[in-house]
Amino acid sequence: MLAEIITIGDELLIGQVVDTNSAFIAKELNKIGVSVYQITSIQDDKEHILQAFKEAESRVDIILITGGLGPTKDDITKKTIAEYFNDTLVRNPDVLKNIETLWKRYVRQTLLQVNKDQAFVPSKAKVLMNTLGTAPGMWLEKNDKTFIALPGVPFEMRNLITTEVVPKLKDKYDAPFILHRTLLIYGLGESTLADRIQDWEDNLPKHIKLAYLPSIGKMRLRLSSKGFNAKQIIDDVQKQIDAVLPLVVNEFVGFEEDEKSLEAFIGEKLTEQEQTLAVVESCTGGKLAGRFTANSGASAYFKGGMVSYATQTKIDVLGVSKSIIDKYSVVSAQVAEAMAQQARQLFKTDYAVATTGNAGPTKGDADAEVGTVFVAIASKSGVFSEKFIFPQPRERVVNKAISMALEMLQKEILKN
Amino acid sequence: MLAEIITIGDELLIGQVVDTNSAFIAKELNKIGVSVYQITSIQDDKEHILQAFKEAESRVDIILITGGLGPTKDDITKKTIAEYFNDTLVRNPDVLKNIETLWKRYVRQTLLQVNKDQAFVPSKAKVLMNTLGTAPGMWLEKNDKTFIALPGVPFEMRNLITTEVVPKLKDKYDAPFILHRTLLIYGLGESTLADRIQDWEDNLPKHIKLAYLPSIGKMRLRLSSKGFNAKQIIDDVQKQIDAVLPLVVNEFVGFEEDEKSLEAFIGEKLTEQEQTLAVVESCTGGKLAGRFTANSGASAYFKGGMVSYATQTKIDVLGVSKSIIDKYSVVSAQVAEAMAQQARQLFKTDYAVATTGNAGPTKGDADAEVGTVFVAIASKSGVFSEKFIFPQPRERVVNKAISMALEMLQKEILKN
Repeated sequence: MLAEIITIGDELLIGQVVDTNSAFIAKELNKIGVSVYQITSIQDDKEHILQAFKEAESRVDIILITGGLGPTKDDITKKTIAEYFNDTLVRNPDVLKNIETLWKRYVRQTLLQVNKDQAFVPSKAKVLMNTLGTAPGMWLEKNDKTFIALPGVPFEMRNLITTEVVPKLKDKYDAPFILHRTLLIYGLGESTLADRIQDWEDNLPKHIKLAYLPSIGKMRLRLSSKGFNAKQIIDDVQKQIDAVLPLVVNEFVGFEEDEKSLEAFIGEKLTEQEQTLAVVESCTGGKLAGRFTANSGASAYFKGGMVSYATQTKIDVLGVSKSIIDKYSVVSAQVAEAMAQQARQLFKTDYAVATTGNAGPTKGDADAEVGTVFVAIASKSGVFSEKFIFPQPRERVVNKAISMALEMLQKEILKN
Repeated sequence: MLAEIITIGDELLIGQVVDTNSAFIAKELNKIGVSVYQITSIQDDKEHILQAFKEAESRVDIILITGGLGPTKDDITKKTIAEYFNDTLVRNPDVLKNIETLWKRYVRQTLLQVNKDQAFVPSKAKVLMNTLGTAPGMWLEKNDKTFIALPGVPFEMRNLITTEVVPKLKDKYDAPFILHRTLLIYGLGESTLADRIQDWEDNLPKHIKLAYLPSIGKMRLRLSSKGFNAKQIIDDVQKQIDAVLPLVVNEFVGFEEDEKSLEAFIGEKLTEQEQTLAVVESCTGGKLAGRFTANSGASAYFKGGMVSYATQTKIDVLGVSKSIIDKYSVVSAQVAEAMAQQARQLFKTDYAVATTGNAGPTKGDADAEVGTVFVAIASKSGVFSEKFIFPQPRERVVNKAISMALEMLQKEILKN
């Protein structure tokens, strides 16, 4: 069962927008046994869209289209689909009702003609109701080929994939089972790894495909297989994993597919142990708190945080003593530790994490080298900190600091 | 002058990796007058790669290929290029030297045969030396068509685009000038904006293309044009911008190409006026503070923030009176306003912004409907708040709340 994803929009071709939709769709299709054969991004241009449809139809069974369904003149996907199917656009009363409901609830202005026009769909299309937006999804069939058109707005597209497209494809097609298992390996280069596992790789059964995915400091080694006997596939892949693991025993840290974000992992542990957390941030500026609060169960353990950005705020609001700051400077282990301890007291929590540093690009109040960050953790067993120096740009320093803070906190929680 | 980007790698087709390379390449090519006609992502499969080359060659002048140049068995792009050009691979001594240098500096282990093999390139290829990695870039020509193959590792690819590909393309082709100008517009929906500027849009000259790019809380309106007379293009587009700006005078905040975000705009205004800001967040959980602190000049006006996530934190740390919370509930205009006023006092700032709400997916401590958010602004002229109801998912509620908070703050600052 093969699919092609066609993403439509000039913004993709001029590099104004990164196409994140395709990866999401590909992942969801893989889960139900549909392989993506090609991803094609094209402009809002009628002839080009028609040509892309024709080529895709010759290659695959399912053509998944996103983008170009908006109410404005540059959006031409719907008209072009109607033309491709020798069809006309007719007003769909259910879609109109959905638009009116959304409008009343969220916009509270007069419904314009262009919005009403979004209720027009090709007469041959089954509507996939978009409860989060005014552009309806569409499902059309032609000579055993299925065309599915979805809005390009990511959260609308995602919702339609999950609630409409995936269930309908599962109903329609008897797809094989696809399995990917990705080993996360730290501290080995691509060629060194390949060299070490060469014999194993040469003896892999034909139906298991191997891929090396290098990134900074990490290798991902992916085994993929598909077939109609899911149990057999799982067993075969597991057998190969059992054979390769002893070869990377010191470098293997886990499977990507099992990976839970570190903050979610910490949140679960704290909730289990009925313990609480506060954060106080200088250089990470609120983003560490943002990581925890992004998870909906956070209120069980996350009591709050402070962004003590200005030095005066560290003194006045957080209550770090001015003499410590004067003596050691605001970017120092001593200040980081004082921040963590103050936060733990102020928010009355079991744990508190503090960050202070200079994210760059230029030196700030403190003398510390650009990229210097101190992370401190306070708990009932006391307080400790670590110093890091991260390379520019600013965004990278902040993200690295957040990663290290989460890692330190995780270790501390597992210890207690 | 047309280009196609072909990105090769199974990881793209199974959704394990988002293709960020294409957007970068497209942007850089646009700057030198090369339009990207199509972006095609395909698997590490010989027949498919050959087919994609052939189709691309029939459509465009420049074929830019990334991925599949690594040292391991799953990487087959180089061999396939040699086959497409009826060519053989020969060892390039300069590439070998580069590999040896990199190895000595960063790896300090024995150079393996697979690494040495990376020095093999098609005999017809001009090498684009990759000083950041072992896979060389390649430049081949065939019947006036140019094929350029680059490694898929983003920072290696980017460096080669900037230092090798762009200068060589500029030398070879006499490309037109391409201009994009994108107006950032806050507080207007796509259809309302289209309705308001309809007459202007209908009278746009043929050579100027218009696009609407909606995202949460923001509209981007892009004018694009290209031609060989750069001055004429710039003047023509500017004339249209001058004509449309009066229609969006209250909602226009700047041009995307000047890359200023609303928070950067606010930061500049506050810095100019020597005024200061604090934020206190419940449902936005630190992310609003994160927006301001992402900009390196933030310390001039941003004194700090608090994430008063738990109700008890609002009382104990922020100092909101328990009786107000009991009387009106924690998600209410009264509590939002009290939060803003307390923050303004605590952090001693000119402005303070507060958010409180229920981001969902389930009801929390308060009775408020999922998606309800109150944003309050305190300043020397007092305090006020607005109520919003945003649709799920959680992430969208948080992002919408941040957008509205920024918008309200911007308006308030412009008023004073």
